[in-house]
Amino acid sequence: MNIVLIGAGNVATQLGLALKKNHTITQVFSRHLTNASSLAKRLNATATDNIEKISTNADIYFLSVTDDAIKPLVNELPNNNGIVVHTAGSVSIDVLGRYKNYGIFYPFQTFSKNRDISFDNIPIMIEGNAENTTNKLFKLASSLSANVHIVNSEQRLLLHIAAVFACNFTNHLYHISKKISDKAELPFNILQPLIEETVSKAFKVSPENAQTGPAARDDRQTMDKHIEILNKSFDDKKLVELYKNLSNRISGISQP
Amino acid sequence: MNIVLIGAGNVATQLGLALKKNHTITQVFSRHLTNASSLAKRLNATATDNIEKISTNADIYFLSVTDDAIKPLVNELPNNNGIVVHTAGSVSIDVLGRYKNYGIFYPFQTFSKNRDISFDNIPIMIEGNAENTTNKLFKLASSLSANVHIVNSEQRLLLHIAAVFACNFTNHLYHISKKISDKAELPFNILQPLIEETVSKAFKVSPENAQTGPAARDDRQTMDKHIEILNKSFDDKKLVELYKNLSNRISGISQP
Repeated sequence: MNIVLIGAGNVATQLGLALKKNHTITQVFSRHLTNASSLAKRLNATATDNIEKISTNADIYFLSVTDDAIKPLVNELPNNNGIVVHTAGSVSIDVLGRYKNYGIFYPFQTFSKNRDISFDNIPIMIEGNAENTTNKLFKLASSLSANVHIVNSEQRLLLHIAAVFACNFTNHLYHISKKISDKAELPFNILQPLIEETVSKAFKVSPENAQTGPAARDDRQTMDKHIEILNKSFDDKKLVELYKNLSNRISGISQP
Repeated sequence: MNIVLIGAGNVATQLGLALKKNHTITQVFSRHLTNASSLAKRLNATATDNIEKISTNADIYFLSVTDDAIKPLVNELPNNNGIVVHTAGSVSIDVLGRYKNYGIFYPFQTFSKNRDISFDNIPIMIEGNAENTTNKLFKLASSLSANVHIVNSEQRLLLHIAAVFACNFTNHLYHISKKISDKAELPFNILQPLIEETVSKAFKVSPENAQTGPAARDDRQTMDKHIEILNKSFDDKKLVELYKNLSNRISGISQP
């Protein structure tokens, strides 16, 4: 397929690199020409910052931009006979309604520009405005990954929220853990086997059954000790609140 | 070494199974004879629920019980010429001060009775009351794992708190994610590649640099949409508070 990428951020970059293997990226658009150019270079494509210069005969147009940039782009991007998709988790398919063929191509992963990642097993959520479009998107997604799902916009929004808890928020908890291990003058990677086992266990026995720790045992003595140390070690009252809130949630579930 | 296990819970079970490979577990004590017996059986050891019947000529005694059970046991366990250690993260070494030789043997991992786990790379934190004891504990720990660290009680307490955030609290976030993917009628394991990449990335580029998501972009529109859906989908006001609190922490760090 001939593909145009609209956007040059984390998702556009990693998606472009993956698509390039079996398809042709003809063009990269970004409001910032330097961004468009540096991605286009990696993809052997041409670059533009002029929306009117976007080719109108590509098979598929990927809108990979921040959520609030999608609508303004839809108003400017010319009509075409290809499929226009966006890659966002929380934006309805309806925003693309002015096109003939449109849909969703949502790779369910966390991306960075400079961390190249294999798409082989990344879940890709697709949705098409009509069966014909859905089939084409399914075929394209299957050329990247063995893990393709047809989901509607409501399901996709819920999945995005699940991802915020499972990825963005857990990463923030890792950030807190790192601050604490720094305070103990011990390397953060001392936590790696524990963190990896936590993940592995959650998928083996389910998170409900995997829950351990002072809150799950309702061990008040230990929790009070932790709160005391957090108060003493960090000038961050909300960190203590977070410890209490999460502990209370866990105790509430574990202690009926 | 000849080893006595005091306790028959998650840690005692997995530690016993690991120690058994190169050492002899002679005895398992638990206040509940059925627990002592079922673990003793797996370790080819004898079982007792009578603390006065604990052998006094073992090389090492492992107190693997809940934190608040350690002190009462220390008052009852007879003097001996072995080393008495406990395996708790948040209890000072001083609680064992009445013995001649004592210390800490803290395997830094999450354990379940029925999930057998390799100790090869589990970090083990040790501390001894004297150099001679520390050396013996180091040698014993090294017979289980290549990842042994000498840490004092303050460092260990901080590490335990780091583990609560990195393991217990993240597992709770996985639990929430699962509830949300259930609501979307999609299998929880659709989240596995994302969660695994989150872990991998945190250790490759550090959690500070790995942070992505609506809060990191300060994308209010998406966060408001998520809050609306959480309110609509779950009868759990504190879940919405948790979403807001964690998002605010992340926005505060990412948006200077």
